[in-house]
Parts: sequence; structure tokens; C-alpha cells
Amino acid sequence: MPDQLLLAIQIANGYGPQPGSWRMPGVDPRSYTDMDVFARYAQAAERGKIQLVFLADTPALENDISRAVPNHSIDPLVVLTTMARATQRIGLVATASTTLNEPYTIARQFKALDVASHGRAGWNAVPTSLPAAAANYGIALPPRAQKYQRVHEVVQVVQALWGSWERDAWVLDAERRQFADTDKIRPVGLQGEHVAARGPLPIPPSEQGQPVVFQAGGGGNGLEVAARYADGVYANPFSIAEGRAHRDALRAAAVAVGRDPDEVKLFAGFMPSIAGSRREALDRRRRLDEVVDLDQRVGYLGSMLGLRLEPAQLDEPLTADQLAAARPSPGDPRAPHALQVAREGWTLRDVLAHGVIDYHPVVPGTAEDVADHMQAWFEAGACDGFSLAIDVYADGIDAFVDQVVPILQRRGLFHLDYEGPTLRENLGVPDQYGLDPRLTA
Amino acid sequence: MPDQLLLAIQIANGYGPQPGSWRMPGVDPRSYTDMDVFARYAQAAERGKIQLVFLADTPALENDISRAVPNHSIDPLVVLTTMARATQRIGLVATASTTLNEPYTIARQFKALDVASHGRAGWNAVPTSLPAAAANYGIALPPRAQKYQRVHEVVQVVQALWGSWERDAWVLDAERRQFADTDKIRPVGLQGEHVAARGPLPIPPSEQGQPVVFQAGGGGNGLEVAARYADGVYANPFSIAEGRAHRDALRAAAVAVGRDPDEVKLFAGFMPSIAGSRREALDRRRRLDEVVDLDQRVGYLGSMLGLRLEPAQLDEPLTADQLAAARPSPGDPRAPHALQVAREGWTLRDVLAHGVIDYHPVVPGTAEDVADHMQAWFEAGACDGFSLAIDVYADGIDAFVDQVVPILQRRGLFHLDYEGPTLRENLGVPDQYGLDPRLTA
Ligand SMILES: Cc1cc2nc3c(=O)[nH]c(=O)nc-3n(C[C@H](O)[C@H](O)[C@H](O)COP(=O)(O)O)c2cc1C
Ligand SMILES: Cc1cc2nc3c(=O)[nH]c(=O)nc-3n(C[C@H](O)[C@H](O)[C@H](O)COP(=O)(O)O)c2cc1C
Repeated sequence: MPDQLLLAIQIANGYGPQPGSWRMPGVDPRSYTDMDVFARYAQAAERGKIQLVFLADTPALENDISRAVPNHSIDPLVVLTTMARATQRIGLVATASTTLNEPYTIARQFKALDVASHGRAGWNAVPTSLPAAAANYGIALPPRAQKYQRVHEVVQVVQALWGSWERDAWVLDAERRQFADTDKIRPVGLQGEHVAARGPLPIPPSEQGQPVVFQAGGGGNGLEVAARYADGVYANPFSIAEGRAHRDALRAAAVAVGRDPDEVKLFAGFMPSIAGSRREALDRRRRLDEVVDLDQRVGYLGSMLGLRLEPAQLDEPLTADQLAAARPSPGDPRAPHALQVAREGWTLRDVLAHGVIDYHPVVPGTAEDVADHMQAWFEAGACDGFSLAIDVYADGIDAFVDQVVPILQRRGLFHLDYEGPTLRENLGVPDQYGLDPRLTA
Repeated sequence: MPDQLLLAIQIANGYGPQPGSWRMPGVDPRSYTDMDVFARYAQAAERGKIQLVFLADTPALENDISRAVPNHSIDPLVVLTTMARATQRIGLVATASTTLNEPYTIARQFKALDVASHGRAGWNAVPTSLPAAAANYGIALPPRAQKYQRVHEVVQVVQALWGSWERDAWVLDAERRQFADTDKIRPVGLQGEHVAARGPLPIPPSEQGQPVVFQAGGGGNGLEVAARYADGVYANPFSIAEGRAHRDALRAAAVAVGRDPDEVKLFAGFMPSIAGSRREALDRRRRLDEVVDLDQRVGYLGSMLGLRLEPAQLDEPLTADQLAAARPSPGDPRAPHALQVAREGWTLRDVLAHGVIDYHPVVPGTAEDVADHMQAWFEAGACDGFSLAIDVYADGIDAFVDQVVPILQRRGLFHLDYEGPTLRENLGVPDQYGLDPRLTA
């Protein structure tokens, strides 16, 4: 187990991951298009020595935004460049689809961000699984095998383009009138089945060489991509056991391709809602739920617990008979936790406010509660760190930074300051110049 | 003729358009990757009320950078976002290839820049003509007809995506819990022969509706694209007569498709080198020429003048016999001007320092000389404004802003302040929401 945990803050639409976050007190409803707020979020995270911000992305309007916020930012590169200008140390990571983008575009844009931020960029290399996104690019989603074959090709071409300048190719010798040593800048000339690029990319190395590669999801296919290329992996385990299983599998897969497993860091998704007490945190989350269809959620909770639940019971707890009859659905890893919360006697509305059907583990409570949860997961080897889905960015990032970070630091679980100016230094992974050494062997 | 001229400043690699600009006094040789310098250039241009900065782009390392600077910036979107954060009024325009990009990517990235900058973005829609750039995308350049057919499709899909939100679709009514009126956000569902997109784009309108379209080059094909979609056109006429012919043709083509010709502004490329005197300006340009092969240029100058010239004559003027024998090449529009300069008795080195074989008209001289040239062109109807290729950005933008702009303003040729916060207001072209009205008719 590593000594200290790593922290990423997920940033989506400008408001928060919850549908009703745009209506919360202190939130500017125009935050979706206002880059000033994104700059402030990054600065707040940097004050807390958070290793990186992460922008998930899918190029489509995925969800119904009549009442809810969009799932993603207007554009990851515009947002991350904005954040780069407002900060000095924090890492800047975003998803770019390997299915819908050409490798030259990805290589150029992320390496430009990397040199512009003095070595703080990272790329989450994932294929797209949303048909609507593919339709925005005039194609149908290819079959999974083909999609993952293309992931490998795209990552290899991108890394080759990133490495098309040797470390000292940019000479800048005014006396000798030499701008660059072009013997050290070479085309890549890669031709795959799906993509190709001649190169070279006209961008010199950054302070960390080239951007860090991240990976997320995708089961066994995703694991193979992660093991070969990634230094960071985003995952959403719902329990310590799930987290350990994923992390162990990832480390074993890294060893199998000849890598040091400590170079691949697993970030577990986690959604804290911080308040003065559990009750206050639940009220905060209930306010966030005002725009969602709770009747539907009650039905969903019922199916998770093997019960037939009606909206009329929303403000009542489960009865003794219901608790006795409950059978957590074996297909849903969140079900045991949902039953445990229901057993504590909360009304169904409050059971839902606990986030038991959310796509991340949720802890509504005090800063101590949140830190305890993180410590337990980390010390059990369920992850190398957390990818935080903060409920409402406008005040939630500050609450995490000002209240939870000091607790983690006091417990020796989190660094007191950035290790250096680059993302690789702050993640504890080696600099990378040129093609991934594992591929050139 | 319009009352006042418009100004764009071209920004390339961080140094200047001349190969040796990175070695000039006061230039930080690392400017290529340093976003602070780009922010300063934009701020200097904004101090001078320049309407816009323009980043030409081709996704390839086009030129030999052993001694010379690269032709383009590390990435237009990273640079323009940086400039957006550092300024309030100036327009932000870049090229994105219609040959190598998918319309959804162009639409998203430029509209994100547009909302992030509060309505200041523009897109120069041109096909790519460099085989090396196509090779970076794993393709060969398509034949011209096909390339231009794709330009039309890409622009139409991009404009449709930009217009997929009606003007008031973004409701933000916290009381009624309405984030957006999704009846006013519609897919575009366009399917061309080359590109397609379903949409909608998840980005609301900016303060100017959507980005401004620009166009450049491409002869008759380019003219057709410009007339249909563009509000700004970049051109490189070498004489007033050429500029007038281009501008007249452009206006006629706009009328032919039912547009108001005053809405299409022609920007003529122009390279001023400002100093205390012509002699000082020539010395500045000679310094810039230190990294270029002047022997080769002497030969080129000779062929332009119908003479056989040797490098040995570099520091001598043309002889009386040579002047008598000179026949300006009819295929080169720059030749008459080259001969005129040679007749003034300058050495060949100084004739070349006049920029007679540059790809823009060059005026090395005082601020008055530069202003006189611009006034003459503008008043002759050769252009609606200028696209300035400033020799060395580090001090040349300041020199232009502090010395030439006040002269133009005193002569009533240039506005005293920005007309408003959006690029469309400052160009004098109408806001655009939705598809171009000319296409939906
Ligand atoms: C934590 C996490 C983050 C993810 N981020 C993204 C993302 O930003 N964009 C995206 O399109 N998919 C994202 N995914 C989805 C996966 O990359 C992958 O597409 C999905 O798991 C389906 O994989 P499949 O195509 O093998 O079925 C993410 C998945 C996880 C678990
Ligand atoms: C002022 C001006 C600016 C241009 N800017 C770009 C540019 O930024 N990127 C590019 O690839 N081509 C640029 N071009 C080239 C043209 O768009 C076009 O590709 C070229 O004229 C060749 O056209 P063709 O393909 O019809 O032969 C520019 C041309 C002119 C005159």
C-alpha cells in the first residue's frame, strides 16, 4: 500500500454532478458558460493541494436538460486551458474519445495544453459507448472488439507523436542561429488498420516530457489498455471488496506487461456531501433532489431491495415486515448498502438522499465522516486515491479543501504540498519522452 | 467605400512571421510555448482597438525549423482561449481545416470559445492544401472539387449545429425548476456526402449568437464559399489593382447569392516594419534576414526581374545596364514593385530587405509611411481593412498600436474605441442565431 492517497476532483458542467445543482444557494445559474467559475474551482482545488482536476467527456447532449444540468462541460480544452491560466501546480486531465477523434488532433491539443501548463496535462483515453455521440460524427458505433483495437492504435500513434521530439531537440542557440536540431525531430510514420499519422508533431517536450495517460471503464478490454499505457485509472467500485479486486487485477495486468505496478494509480469515484451533521448533509442532498422524479426512484429502490415500494411511503421508513422481507438484488453492488441505510430507520426520502442509488459511493455527513470513509478504503487497499464528485462545486470544493483535507493531512494520509511543478511528479510516475518504452522494446 | 478600415493582427508562432524573429532583441526565445507572451500580444492589440487577432493554421510541421521559427502556433484553441482570458473586447479568429476535421469538433470548439469569450470568436473555414497535413490524418489530399464540396458541407453542418439552440432556449428559471426549454433545442440531422451530424450541440448561444465565419484563398472555389458564408475574407493582393479586383469580385459574388455586400469584409495582408526612418527599418529587416539563405534569394530576385544575379553583387545596387535590361516577370505580381525599389538605387541586400519577394506587401519605414500606404489602399477600394503581419510581435505590435493607430485615428480612418463587446458588433455584421438565413430559404 502506498503511503499517501491521491486526489482528483471531477468537474462537469460548472455546477456539480447532481441534476439540481444549478438551483443551489450561491450557485450562479450561468456557470455552464462562465469560465470565471471554472478558474475559481481550479484555484480552490489547488489551495487544497489536490493532484488534479478531471473532466469526463462525451461529445453529445446525453441527458434531458429541461430540469437537470448537462452532464459535461462545454469543451474540455477550453475549460482546461482556462484553468491552466489560473493555477500553477494542479494537474489538468480530460477525456477525449479514441473512437471519434483522430490521433493527430488529440496529440496536438493535449500536448499544447501540456507545454502551456508547464507539464500538467493528462489524457483519459477511452472509446465512446454512446450511440448519440457517434451519430454526431456521422457514424454508427463500431463493435466492441474493433473499438478497442482502435484504442490501442490511437494511443500508440498519440504517444509516438508526443515523442517525435527528443528531449533536447529544441536548441534555441541564438549565437549559432540554431532554433532546433532537426535530426532529433522525426516523423512517426505509423499506419494502423484504423488510424495513421506521419508526424512529426510540431511541439517540443513539456517539463514532464509529455501528457500522462489515464483510462476508465471497459472491463477486461479497458484493463488491458490501462495496464499497457495508463498511469492513472478512474473506476467506480461500490465497495471496498470491489475496489480491491479491481486494483489487484490492474496491478497484476501491469506486471504481466512488464511494468512496475506502483506506476498505475487507481482513483475510486466518491461523492462526499459535507455539512455540520449527517442531518444537515441529507437536507442538502434533498434540496439537490428537488428536480428529480422521486416516485420513480422509490420504485427503483424497491427493486434493489426486492420489495414493491410505493411513492406514498416516501416520508416513512420501511416497516419491520418490509425489512424482514427485503432481499438485496444480487445484480446490484449497491443493494447491501441500501438495505443497511434503510435498517437505520430513515424515511425513504432520506434513504434516497443517502445516495444509495447514485453511480458513486456517497457519504453525506461531517468532514470527519468523509475522511473516515476515505481512510478505510485507502488502508484496505481498495484504491490509490479518490476521484471526487463534489455535490455542488460552488461551495463543496471549498468545504472539502478547508475541512476534509486538513484531517487527511493530520492523519498523515495526504501530502502537505505539491511535490513539484508537473503532474508526473505529483502522481509519483516517471517522466516520459518518446514512445512508451514498453512498446518500443 | 466604408468610412473606416478594420484591422486584424496575424499571430503565428509567438515570435513573428519572419524566420529569424526568435533571435531579435527583446524576444524570449521560448515564446513558442509560453502562453504569457500570447496573452501580452492580445492585450497590446486590444489597447490599440484592433478588431481581431487571427491565427492561420495548418496541422503539420510545414517548414525546416533548424534556423527558422515554425509557421504556426502550437494550437489555435489553446492560444485563443488564453487570449480570451486576458482580454475583454478583441475578436479571436483561427483557421480549422474543413478537410481534416469533423464538423462536430469544429462547431463545439469554436462555439465553446465563443461563449467563453462572450461573443468574440470566429472561424476561418478553409480546406487544406498541404499533403503533409493530410498525411498527419492518414489520408491523401482529395481532388480540389471534392475538397470544396466538403467545405460547403462542413460549413453548413457547423452552422446548423451552432444554431441548434434557439435564442431563448436557455431558460434558467430556478422557481419553475426549468434549466432549458428543450422544445427550442433541436437536432440538426444533416447527412452530406462527406460529413454528417445529428446534434444538437450542447452549447447555448453566445452574446453574438454564434461565431463569425471567415474565408481565405482558393480562387473561384474560395470566392463561392466566401460569398455564401463568410463575413470576413483574408487575401494577399500585391497591388491596389489586385485588391480592388478581388474585393469587387467578392462583393459581386455576395450580391449574386442575395447578400448585402457590405457584410463581407476583405482584409488585405500587409507587413509593416516600423522604425524611426526607412534606413532603420531596413536594418531591422536585415537583422531578421540573418538566418535566411540570401544567395538563394538573390537568384530568385533575378528571375523576378528577368536578370541573372549573383550573390557577389549582394552589397551593390543594380548597374545601369542591369536596370535597362530588367524585364519584370509577368507571372509574378510582386515584380513591378521589386523593380521600382531597385531603381531607387538600394543594394540588393536592401532591395531584399524591402520585402519585395515576401508573401505580403511590405512597408519598411516610419509610422507615417505605414499609415500612408494603408490609407492609399483603403481609399482606393482595395480592401475593407488589413490583416497585419507584424514583423516581430514582441515590440512590433506596440509600435503599431502606439504610433500607427493614432495617425489612422487622427485621419478619421480608424475607430476610437470598440463599438461593443462582440466581434460582430466590431466588424459591423449582424448577429447570427441558427442556420445562415441564406441557406434556410
Ligand atoms: C470512472 C469512469 C469514467 C469514465 N469516463 C468516461 C468519459 O469521460 N467519457 C466516456 O465516453 N466514457 C467514459 N467512461 C466509460 C468507459 O470508458 C467505457 O466506454 C464504458 O465503460 C463502456 O465500455 P464498453 O464500450 O467496453 O462497453 C467512464 C467509465 C468509468 C468507469
Ligand atoms: C490570406 C490567406 C490565408 C490563408 N490561411 C490559411 C490557413 O490558415 N490554413 C491553410 O491551410 N490554408 C490557408 N490559406 C490557403 C487557402 O485557404 C487555400 O488552401 C489555398 O489558397 C489553396 O487553395 P486550393 O486548395 O483551392 O488550391 C490561406 C490563404 C490565404 C490567401
